Amino acid sequence: MPHPSSDPVAQLYQGVQLTRPLLRHITAAVEAELAGTGVSVGMRAVLEALSEADTATLPDLTARLGLKRQFIHRMLAEALNIDMAEALPHPRRRNGHTYRLTRRGRATIERIRARENARLAEFLGRISADDVAPFLRVQAALNHFFLQMANGDPAAPAQESQAP
Amino acid sequence: MPHPSSDPVAQLYQGVQLTRPLLRHITAAVEAELAGTGVSVGMRAVLEALSEADTATLPDLTARLGLKRQFIHRMLAEALNIDMAEALPHPRRRNGHTYRLTRRGRATIERIRARENARLAEFLGRISADDVAPFLRVQAALNHFFLQMANGDPAAPAQESQAP
Repeated sequence: MPHPSSDPVAQLYQGVQLTRPLLRHITAAVEAELAGTGVSVGMRAVLEALSEADTATLPDLTARLGLKRQFIHRMLAEALNIDMAEALPHPRRRNGHTYRLTRRGRATIERIRARENARLAEFLGRISADDVAPFLRVQAALNHFFLQMANGDPAAPAQESQAP
Repeated sequence: MPHPSSDPVAQLYQGVQLTRPLLRHITAAVEAELAGTGVSVGMRAVLEALSEADTATLPDLTARLGLKRQFIHRMLAEALNIDMAEALPHPRRRNGHTYRLTRRGRATIERIRARENARLAEFLGRISADDVAPFLRVQAALNHFFLQMANGDPAAPAQESQAP
């Protein structure tokens, strides 16, 4: 990594450029942590989304996770298969389903999340505690900004500074 | 996005979780900005890497960008095709090549980068200037931490706090 610049635009660009390798490393780290649990990175994401949503349909999970519907469908099928999730009748659509964690699925994702949080607590011991809030603010503001830019609306003045 | 928590582990986790949507939005925003230039997101990355490296081989670019070799090969071929880059004989390997920007390629990537930096400067007007340095520090430290964890070496004490 190049030496940190004192120019804020260059610093910000360096931080933004770290997003792609960071996602690669996060995915690999989560995968390494899951070794031996029988849960893949994709299934972990689905279990976590179910744990936050109580019950959710396939479109709910697709919208929440921003992953391909077909991929989530496959992860759900695997989760059903190993008794981590169960299908219930859809409240409104005949032949439709909604999904929720089994007791086993809930225990599994809670154990995984607890371990991940222990890792993050370990990480926090290595940085300045004061850096966390600005990190989250900038991440949230960047998300908002690039989403606007992607939608061709970069100059809209509302909300940007309200992050997260 | 959930309400920001005051628990630093939860805040950090929120920020880390924003990495995936952020990369998606960055890519879409870069793509939107490139509309009409004839340069794709992938070629932009290769042109930028060439502009920083002066001359580079395919393995150099693959290592630098962390993208698939085959993908970079295709981007390079397109760049050669539209006179953005040129192939030179490899300094040491017969039949090998090294690549550099043409004058046109350099002008193109410089124009693209200048526009991107103008966008980032606009973004900086919407956040606190003091947030940029901690953002970069945490991004860099997270990269290091998750890479270590992915390599099964999460507890190694060296370097973590030296970021970046």
